[in-house]
Amino acid sequence: VTTDTLVQDVHFDLKAVTWEELGWKALAVNLSDIAAMGGIPTYALLSLALPPQLDVDDIIRFVRSMIYLANQFDVILIGGNTVAAPQVVINMTLIGYCKTNAMLRRTGALPGEQISVTGYLGSSAAGLAMLKGKFIRDREASNFLRQAHLKPTPRIREGQILLQQGVRTAIDISDGLVADLEHICEASGVSAKIRVDQLPVHPVVKTNFPDFQQLALFGGEDYELLFTADQETISRVRQSLACPITVIGEVTREISAQRVMVIDDRGNILRYEKGGWNHFRNAATTGKFTQP
Amino acid sequence: VTTDTLVQDVHFDLKAVTWEELGWKALAVNLSDIAAMGGIPTYALLSLALPPQLDVDDIIRFVRSMIYLANQFDVILIGGNTVAAPQVVINMTLIGYCKTNAMLRRTGALPGEQISVTGYLGSSAAGLAMLKGKFIRDREASNFLRQAHLKPTPRIREGQILLQQGVRTAIDISDGLVADLEHICEASGVSAKIRVDQLPVHPVVKTNFPDFQQLALFGGEDYELLFTADQETISRVRQSLACPITVIGEVTREISAQRVMVIDDRGNILRYEKGGWNHFRNAATTGKFTQP
Repeated sequence: VTTDTLVQDVHFDLKAVTWEELGWKALAVNLSDIAAMGGIPTYALLSLALPPQLDVDDIIRFVRSMIYLANQFDVILIGGNTVAAPQVVINMTLIGYCKTNAMLRRTGALPGEQISVTGYLGSSAAGLAMLKGKFIRDREASNFLRQAHLKPTPRIREGQILLQQGVRTAIDISDGLVADLEHICEASGVSAKIRVDQLPVHPVVKTNFPDFQQLALFGGEDYELLFTADQETISRVRQSLACPITVIGEVTREISAQRVMVIDDRGNILRYEKGGWNHFRNAATTGKFTQP
Repeated sequence: VTTDTLVQDVHFDLKAVTWEELGWKALAVNLSDIAAMGGIPTYALLSLALPPQLDVDDIIRFVRSMIYLANQFDVILIGGNTVAAPQVVINMTLIGYCKTNAMLRRTGALPGEQISVTGYLGSSAAGLAMLKGKFIRDREASNFLRQAHLKPTPRIREGQILLQQGVRTAIDISDGLVADLEHICEASGVSAKIRVDQLPVHPVVKTNFPDFQQLALFGGEDYELLFTADQETISRVRQSLACPITVIGEVTREISAQRVMVIDDRGNILRYEKGGWNHFRNAATTGKFTQP
């Protein structure tokens, strides 16, 4: 069971986002939490706090978009609650299950295992930067970035296949690669080493964002799956999945000073400040790390 | 699965209510929804939207109080979510189950069945009137009224016993007796007749509130169980329960004009305006019904 809340003007701006996108994203971020455990989502509850001056058609668009996404994963919106409030607050609760006792957890990462991710990193943060004002000339690129931030497709089937192929340690990337990898390291009592030049970044992001490495490392909200397993398991996973699977580093023995060591293009250790999402929000897209 | 949202300055006023009371009530109203189905509650999720300037100790008091109530029913607070927001928004989701396929529903009320309630009616609305300014001299009465409004005890065990004893139609009184009885009537395709002089009203409310009948009929938030069954079943229920069980009327065949007919002390039909909670909130404690 997972729950998540989106608050107007904290998590979204109604001037920048459509209700249709909002309905999709509100459910998608919860689906991603079930995906991160290799679970099968079943039932969703939607609690809406709404100001009185809204257009009913907007709420219909919101719910339709949510149900459209729900249908893709056989999820049923079984109920919820509606209340009046000064601003929009969207709370979703999503229920799911695992077919077996096994499930993906943050624990269990072992030194020597490879660290892998599905899909691309940094696209969502690049989309957010665009929504906040960065100009992107190309229409197709602009659509790609907007969708990456507002209509992510949760990795439900991929999570189940990871589990079937023997992966046991995973998380979804919501706070950012480094922050979420730290969560795995803390839960597993290990450290990790990742290489910046191995991060999978989409060509659109590489082309338009000189700081694409920072976006990939700290951006967050990609809702890709980050997982660890031995080389053989990862080979099996790669054969079973259509999406890109990229090895970006390896699990190491516990180093107390720094959970996640980031190695740059020239083999040097990058210094960076602690934190994922919060950090990113505060620092925007500038000065995320400095070279020694 | 049930979910409910409380919004600051819509559902509660932090100047009138303690955090300890708020934590209790937020869980209690959800427990009551499970009680109304004869269910056994199991897991709770708490999503909190909080403004930044709050005292952490208040939040600890809030959660402790919630857990204290949860423990009384073996409910475990398994998780949730915390976000920043301009005002406090409390969203709870509660999960429960029924031991058998049978459960209490709003459907199935049959003409001729008796309509009964647990406990007393109108106490919560009286408590709200007091919190809004009505002076109550007696300390014990004042404590009773405050507790009735802010720390209701959900009828979890009572709901299960109703189910065991063969009751199939029930609802919890959150919107108000008349409004919630209308819900049963609509779902069951029947009408109902209730007698004002049979409504169970606590002596404290009778003594201090001349409009106690209106409070009992329309007040809401008593979180008592309203149910219908044949006379024999209600006798068995009464023998099985420690709390008062009062027969207040009977189910009749469907009358389209008015779902719920209210009979006054002298046998006359009372006219009243439609609506429970909303009505009450708008009209406060004045002019709820007029005699023909």
